[in-house]
Amino acid sequence: MTTSQEIAPEIPVLTSLPVGFSASGVAAKIKKNGKPDVAMIVSDLPCAGAAVFTTNRAKAAPVLRGMAQMAADPNAFRAIVINAGCANACTGAQGKRNAETTARLAAKALKVKASQVLVMSTGVIGAQLPMDKVAAGVAEASQALSLDGLTAAAGAIMTTDLVPKTARVDRDAFSIVGIAKGSGMIHPNMATMLGAIVTDADVPAALLQQMTRRATVRSFNSISVDGDTSTNDTLLVLANGASGAKIRRGPTAVAFEAALTEVCVSLARQIARDGEGATKFITIDVTGAKSEAQARKVGRTIAVSPLVKTAFYGGDANWGRIVAAAGYSGEDVDPDKMSLWFSGVKVFRNGTPTAYSDAEATEAMQPHDVSIRLDLGLGSAQATVWTCDMSHDYVTINGKYRT
Amino acid sequence: MTTSQEIAPEIPVLTSLPVGFSASGVAAKIKKNGKPDVAMIVSDLPCAGAAVFTTNRAKAAPVLRGMAQMAADPNAFRAIVINAGCANACTGAQGKRNAETTARLAAKALKVKASQVLVMSTGVIGAQLPMDKVAAGVAEASQALSLDGLTAAAGAIMTTDLVPKTARVDRDAFSIVGIAKGSGMIHPNMATMLGAIVTDADVPAALLQQMTRRATVRSFNSISVDGDTSTNDTLLVLANGASGAKIRRGPTAVAFEAALTEVCVSLARQIARDGEGATKFITIDVTGAKSEAQARKVGRTIAVSPLVKTAFYGGDANWGRIVAAAGYSGEDVDPDKMSLWFSGVKVFRNGTPTAYSDAEATEAMQPHDVSIRLDLGLGSAQATVWTCDMSHDYVTINGKYRT
Repeated sequence: MTTSQEIAPEIPVLTSLPVGFSASGVAAKIKKNGKPDVAMIVSDLPCAGAAVFTTNRAKAAPVLRGMAQMAADPNAFRAIVINAGCANACTGAQGKRNAETTARLAAKALKVKASQVLVMSTGVIGAQLPMDKVAAGVAEASQALSLDGLTAAAGAIMTTDLVPKTARVDRDAFSIVGIAKGSGMIHPNMATMLGAIVTDADVPAALLQQMTRRATVRSFNSISVDGDTSTNDTLLVLANGASGAKIRRGPTAVAFEAALTEVCVSLARQIARDGEGATKFITIDVTGAKSEAQARKVGRTIAVSPLVKTAFYGGDANWGRIVAAAGYSGEDVDPDKMSLWFSGVKVFRNGTPTAYSDAEATEAMQPHDVSIRLDLGLGSAQATVWTCDMSHDYVTINGKYRT
Repeated sequence: MTTSQEIAPEIPVLTSLPVGFSASGVAAKIKKNGKPDVAMIVSDLPCAGAAVFTTNRAKAAPVLRGMAQMAADPNAFRAIVINAGCANACTGAQGKRNAETTARLAAKALKVKASQVLVMSTGVIGAQLPMDKVAAGVAEASQALSLDGLTAAAGAIMTTDLVPKTARVDRDAFSIVGIAKGSGMIHPNMATMLGAIVTDADVPAALLQQMTRRATVRSFNSISVDGDTSTNDTLLVLANGASGAKIRRGPTAVAFEAALTEVCVSLARQIARDGEGATKFITIDVTGAKSEAQARKVGRTIAVSPLVKTAFYGGDANWGRIVAAAGYSGEDVDPDKMSLWFSGVKVFRNGTPTAYSDAEATEAMQPHDVSIRLDLGLGSAQATVWTCDMSHDYVTINGKYRT
């Protein structure tokens, strides 16, 4: 059995939110199991906002609404409302009205404008939001807001996640904290499943957007659970400036972007570690590439291969599948230049199997956390991608998800 | 349990090979389980040949050899030798020498030139061929050739396949028969896993190649088991002209291509039906597309989604996952124009769930053979794609493939 300690070693202890933020998570019975399902994060001050949304053409209603808000005015956000249990995707005009109503209900309770409230949803696709339950949940969540409510919020956005996902980076001048949910339908493409990050730094919206895009590529876009890109993938970043730390182009921006990337990478790794049915956490380093983009594309192709993922589940050092996946990545790679290591054991060098012992390679695959390195022999760029194995439980969970 | 009748309803009764061909299948202990693993198909006359090979950059040694042969002279082939149990992929210079040696051994036994012998391999990637066993197997197979040996050949190329795959079309003037193997690492891209088709028609090599490419798109390139494109995918077609039926441009070519496509589609459907661990055979019709290519791309994206495939395994009418997969296919689709049917039950119309009953939709998913139709609402083109579900057995089979 996978223990929660194995899948949650990276979760930091959260003391409080950045200055000027509060959060909550409550149970509104949108989920059939009665667990918390409405989360709220609120800022006392207007926030600059940045966002990355799914590239899926079947965008959920809250995604379409959020994209319009970011285009209209990304400078005065006050709140994020998130529900789990229903994705409000493939729901037509009624779904769009329900997303707007959710924002209006929150705005009224918080005494802000609906245009200042961002909405996210996750859960079953193709079902309408139960608006009576949403209304009750939003009312309760707005009453439950507290300075240490982020863990409750992280719990309320979970679906098949086993553990909540939070991350925090503190610097002298500012703090950044974030929450995320993942588990299945995880193959982010310019976005994550759901992630919300808040900071008390003062960052102009345009700069925040640039930094968010770059951080996303190296974090949420570098993980995969099953190759399915969700209809709801959204990462929101809000900066309220309450700490007084002004982030502008130059050294302050470099320092802030490094901290933001650290939060994103931590959340992304937590999502891969807690993939549906996962029994192993796999770090894939692709080195010797012509470009970072090439390394990442090869790594993502390996990370999504059902044959690679089931071999890791079975603890079978069937490394040929990794080379095969690199071969169909669409990148111009050459197996005769490749070398491959399993947790330090070199099994393939310049296109030919080495004289490794199979027992040694198999042994290297047994720990919960395993790493592979594939050197492409083409250049000096590299990228790291994180994924999990594919187990019997993945099939069980997804064969009966709605029941 | 899936029975062999459920996965093999399409296998025709094979009486004999087309005029001038013989075949055999023998056990040479390349497979650990001792089952047949060397197949041979031989023509008494020189054959025009056509081939489609994997697009994987990590091409196996026999694939590289076959590509060179097709480029050098596709007009005088005499034999195909296929081994299962070892893919001879990721095997470097030694692997290339072993593929050539296999052809030389067969050529000597058959009294033809090595350049007239095509070689295919399937099985574990990253292991060298056991050449002593291959030599014995080739010698035995060349002695065992018979006019009704195609079923034995089809059995000897199986890996995790549960049933042999054969297809036959007879016309007044000629016959076409074929064999194939599939099961896992099935996501052909301009090729299939392994397929060999022979005919006694007289078809010029260039024309045969054009027809083979088109037939492949509508058959082997329209199935998926797991989204992994193999290192060894190869389809070979040999035409020896022994029937005297001259196929040239015009009506004879149209008739021959229709027959060739029929054989390819039958073999492809058999591969999808017998996918590793499959408990369901799923036909996906994508209609209302702007082009056949668009319809096929959307269909293939649905066919490879682990979330869609596990939902079918669980018999869960979680149709939102189908719309989501169409949305990330990369095609410019619009969910608000889509409609979706499960075995005739309309669940989604113009972007909104219909008033279907969940019991009715769930019932429609229970038979072994199920069909879904997704109308894109964009045009009048359509394509059909075939796949299977993803089960616990898929994970079991691939977690321990080499053991």
